[in-house]
Amino acid sequence: MSLLSQPRKAVVLLSGGLDSTTVLAIARAEGYLPHALSFRYGQRHQAELTAASRVARAFGVPHRILAIDLRAIGGSALTDDIEVPKDRDRAAMGKDVPVTYVPARNTVFLALALGYAETLDAGDLFLGANAVDYSGYPDCRPAFIEAFERLAQVATAQGVSGAVQYRVHAPLMSLTKADIIRRGVELGVDYALTHSCYDPVGELACGRCDACQLRRKGFTEAGVQDPTRYAA
Amino acid sequence: MSLLSQPRKAVVLLSGGLDSTTVLAIARAEGYLPHALSFRYGQRHQAELTAASRVARAFGVPHRILAIDLRAIGGSALTDDIEVPKDRDRAAMGKDVPVTYVPARNTVFLALALGYAETLDAGDLFLGANAVDYSGYPDCRPAFIEAFERLAQVATAQGVSGAVQYRVHAPLMSLTKADIIRRGVELGVDYALTHSCYDPVGELACGRCDACQLRRKGFTEAGVQDPTRYAA
Repeated sequence: MSLLSQPRKAVVLLSGGLDSTTVLAIARAEGYLPHALSFRYGQRHQAELTAASRVARAFGVPHRILAIDLRAIGGSALTDDIEVPKDRDRAAMGKDVPVTYVPARNTVFLALALGYAETLDAGDLFLGANAVDYSGYPDCRPAFIEAFERLAQVATAQGVSGAVQYRVHAPLMSLTKADIIRRGVELGVDYALTHSCYDPVGELACGRCDACQLRRKGFTEAGVQDPTRYAA
Repeated sequence: MSLLSQPRKAVVLLSGGLDSTTVLAIARAEGYLPHALSFRYGQRHQAELTAASRVARAFGVPHRILAIDLRAIGGSALTDDIEVPKDRDRAAMGKDVPVTYVPARNTVFLALALGYAETLDAGDLFLGANAVDYSGYPDCRPAFIEAFERLAQVATAQGVSGAVQYRVHAPLMSLTKADIIRRGVELGVDYALTHSCYDPVGELACGRCDACQLRRKGFTEAGVQDPTRYAA
């Protein structure tokens, strides 16, 4: 491990969305040297990765994009041809696991973050999991985060030897979307760089998918002007 | 979940090597409907995947190959340009984590198997982890397997709802290579279909890497004729 006086490296999962960009700002504010990691996982559009690269550049942090073909195991509207749901009300969003759920996505992404962390001698992983506006995903909850931390410690050479104590940071876990936006604005995040929409219309966000609805509502509740350009 | 009278689907991680092929035979013998899953993860050679396809065809089971570019996070002789060690003695193999270690590999592979299982409504994952002839890998031990089982239960929609109880089967865990070969032969496995070598020479196994040495020794100790064609 690095000396206490040196900034510690951390791996930050960066989708290019509002949440993960705020997490990147938090990791930096906490004194880490963030290494951003994004995934090309068979998304239907490239807007997310374009935003992730833009954000990493703006923060001046190393950024890796790892290709992984989740379409080979199927099961999600984000990677298959199932239609992305539109104009759902909040009750519907919270009730079921949405069809936009990618099987075991955060497990896969954290596993890859762990591998990257191991090559960096880093023990700190950051992700934007959130249990408030989490839209029904099971792998965005504290029990999942804790189980992954325990796994990491026994899964890796540096964990087993005791050289590294793994910690999965999910600093947004209990924040509302409005809280997240307020925290990001305090830290100087430019949300115009970020992208949330599941189904963009050219350069515009659709304004109607779950992600757009949550984002819009968050800006309104935070009393912060939404820089997003919506189609509807 | 399926009715008890129906064969249960299971996901079997299949590298095309001796161990995972034996696991496939065990899963079938235990009454599961195996679905084989292999990874194209930036290996330096294609012999493993060719063997995996050959084995899956011989068993008549569904087989998916998922591409994942582990080279983006580096750190291993199996995916980087570090030289594969040759002619190491048994003491050296057991002592250190070898340079052929792929960071967090089994964590990543089980995470993807979990995603695939979720799309199949399956709760059973099989892998060839082995703590006896395990060549120093931290993610081939019972503590790792148990931690992953706990993670799976809280990581997935079907685990959280209680619809599926996840179980990670590592039937080779406490077997020697000779035990594994004897078990496979009992089950009718044709080991000529399988491939173990880290550094093949054309169509031949090198005969000198850790994998070749363990394989050779296993056949000798099992008193079974080794069908492998070695270069040295």
